[in-house]
Order: sequence, then structure tokens, then C-alpha cells
Amino acid sequence: MLCLRSTTEDAWLQRAIAHTDAILVDHAHCERKAATQALGLLARYPGRPELVEPMLALAREELEHFEQIVAILQTRGVAMHPQTATGYQAKLFKSVRKDEPDRLMDHLLVASLIEARSCERFKLLSDHHPDETLREVYRGLLASEARHHGTFVRLAEQLTGDRPTVRARLDELAEREVRVLDRSKPLPRLHAGG
Amino acid sequence: MLCLRSTTEDAWLQRAIAHTDAILVDHAHCERKAATQALGLLARYPGRPELVEPMLALAREELEHFEQIVAILQTRGVAMHPQTATGYQAKLFKSVRKDEPDRLMDHLLVASLIEARSCERFKLLSDHHPDETLREVYRGLLASEARHHGTFVRLAEQLTGDRPTVRARLDELAEREVRVLDRSKPLPRLHAGG
Repeated sequence: MLCLRSTTEDAWLQRAIAHTDAILVDHAHCERKAATQALGLLARYPGRPELVEPMLALAREELEHFEQIVAILQTRGVAMHPQTATGYQAKLFKSVRKDEPDRLMDHLLVASLIEARSCERFKLLSDHHPDETLREVYRGLLASEARHHGTFVRLAEQLTGDRPTVRARLDELAEREVRVLDRSKPLPRLHAGG
Repeated sequence: MLCLRSTTEDAWLQRAIAHTDAILVDHAHCERKAATQALGLLARYPGRPELVEPMLALAREELEHFEQIVAILQTRGVAMHPQTATGYQAKLFKSVRKDEPDRLMDHLLVASLIEARSCERFKLLSDHHPDETLREVYRGLLASEARHHGTFVRLAEQLTGDRPTVRARLDELAEREVRVLDRSKPLPRLHAGG
């Protein structure tokens, strides 16, 4: 699914369901972070006008999701709070090579994998979460995460004009994503080990 | 005007008009940065739900302005590019005290002063820029910068529940803003010396 090299195990799903509030808090943070990272790409690559429209669209959509999840937390009487990092994103971004245009290509592909993993896990939650309202929420978010995955891969292909190289690198990074995920702290988080 | 302790001199306006493209590039960067900073406050203060709605509204508005200015640059055939910092924002944020709740209060007030200075200068550009389309653009942005200034001050007052203290601190920071502005590099930027 979406180039991922592993399928999330039931242990993750059970932990996520048992710690729904923590997963929602983490989810809100992830949406905000994704928006900030999209704007960060515009800051780092002002000379790439092809990034502007897709990154703005992405940032706006992530902010909508952030707002949606914060509202759900309020309904549940749960306060947002800071969270310990699992190391997943930080370690994954360490795979980004230092020289351009590899750096931008890798950054886009790492971002595409994070979106893909969110998508895979939202699918699980949308099928199996006991709360019907939340199942509906996750169903709604699924499609947009899949779209974002596609946006990042398409931008990487556009950047290099070399689809086979991008696909090969995406495969390598997808292998690494599995290792990073398996080694990340087993906390109730969207991007934590099983 | 808007608590500022100095009035921008004609030298700044003349330089801005003579370097319109540079001012527009800087302006686009400022809008993007303001959006990122608003999201940064949500990241740093997840436990303050009163920040969510105003900071999201602000970030969205700044992203719209960013998009608008990028489109104007494209029409003018000017590419976005990185710019040397004048030191204005960095030095101003150094006035932020370290302990809470002073830290958040100061951050909000510094942000309010940056918005106020933008507003003051957009007013000048909206009155005196030779290009009528740009005059119109600056006129449109004026009101929203003034509103953002008010949002930040109101949040600081809400936070402390102590209007006189906030006003006194705003006065102090406004004095400092003038010194920082006067000492910032005389580059063609929205927030540079005269």
C-alpha cells in the first residue's frame, strides 16, 4: 500500500484504541507539524515556484485537520499538551542526503512516506475503532493523506525528471522507514512501533 | 499610530519605491514567516486553547497574503530568492523575557509591534507608491495588519488579565523597537532603518 514496506500489526491498533486520547493529541501535533514543514520547504527553496501551490494547499488542508482534531479533543474534554518524541520523524529525516538536488528529493520522499504511514494507520482506525464518529473522521482523512503522499512523490519526479531514480530511492527510504518505525519508542502515537 | 514610537521617514519610502521588487520579495518572506510563527506559538503553548482560533485565523490570512504577493512577483517576472536578514526580528525577539508568563506576553507584544510597523509602512506605500495596482494591494493589507496588531495585544491582555501592565510593557518594547529599527541594516526591506 502506497509504497510502504510493512503492514502495521494488530498490537499497534489495540494500543491506539486503548489510548484514543493520546493518539488524538499526537494526531493534532502531526497535522500542525506537517503544515509547518510544508511552509519550511517554501522557506528553504524560495527559488522553486513549483513548490508554492502544492505546499500552500497542503499546509491549508493540514491546518483544517488540526482544527478538526482540536475540536474533537475539546468535545472529549481532553487538553492538548506537549508530547515526548518517538524519534520516528527525526530519524527518518536523517536519511536525507546533504547535497542538492538529492536533498530536496529525499526530503520530499521522506515526507511522502510519513503521509503514507498516516494513511495506512487511519485506514486501520477507520475500519476498527469502536467509536463510530471517530471511524468517520479517519475515513475522511484517509483520502487526503493518500493525496499528499502522491503530491510529494510527483514533486520529486518533477524535480528530477527521472522517474526510475525516484522510485528506486523511494524503495530504499521505504525500507528504512520500516526499520525506524520498528525501533521507535512504543508509545501510543500515530508513528510508533507495533 | 498603533503604539509605535517613531514615524517612518521619507528616506525609507524612497528606497522602498526605488527597490519595489526587493520590497515585494521581502514582503512575501514576511507573510510566510508570520504564518510559521503563529503555528510556532501553538507548538510551544499547546496547553493554551485560547491561542488556537486566533493563531489559525492569522496563519491562514498570512498565507493568503503570501500567495497574493508571490502572484504579483510572477506577474512582474521576479523570482523569489533568499534574503540577508536585517536583524530586526531577531533583535526584537531578544527582548522577550525567559520566564512564563512574561515570555508569552512579551512574544505576543513583540509580534504586535512587528504587525504595527508593517501596517505603518503599508500605509505609506498605499499613499505614495507610483504604481496604482500596488497602492491598491497595500491598502487591502493595511486593515489586516492593524487587526493582527490588535489580536496580539488582546491576547496578551487576556493572558495576564492586567491591562495596565501589558500597556506599560508594550510601551517599553515599542521604545526598543525604534532603537532596533534604527540600527538594522539599511537594506530595501519592510523592516529596515530609514
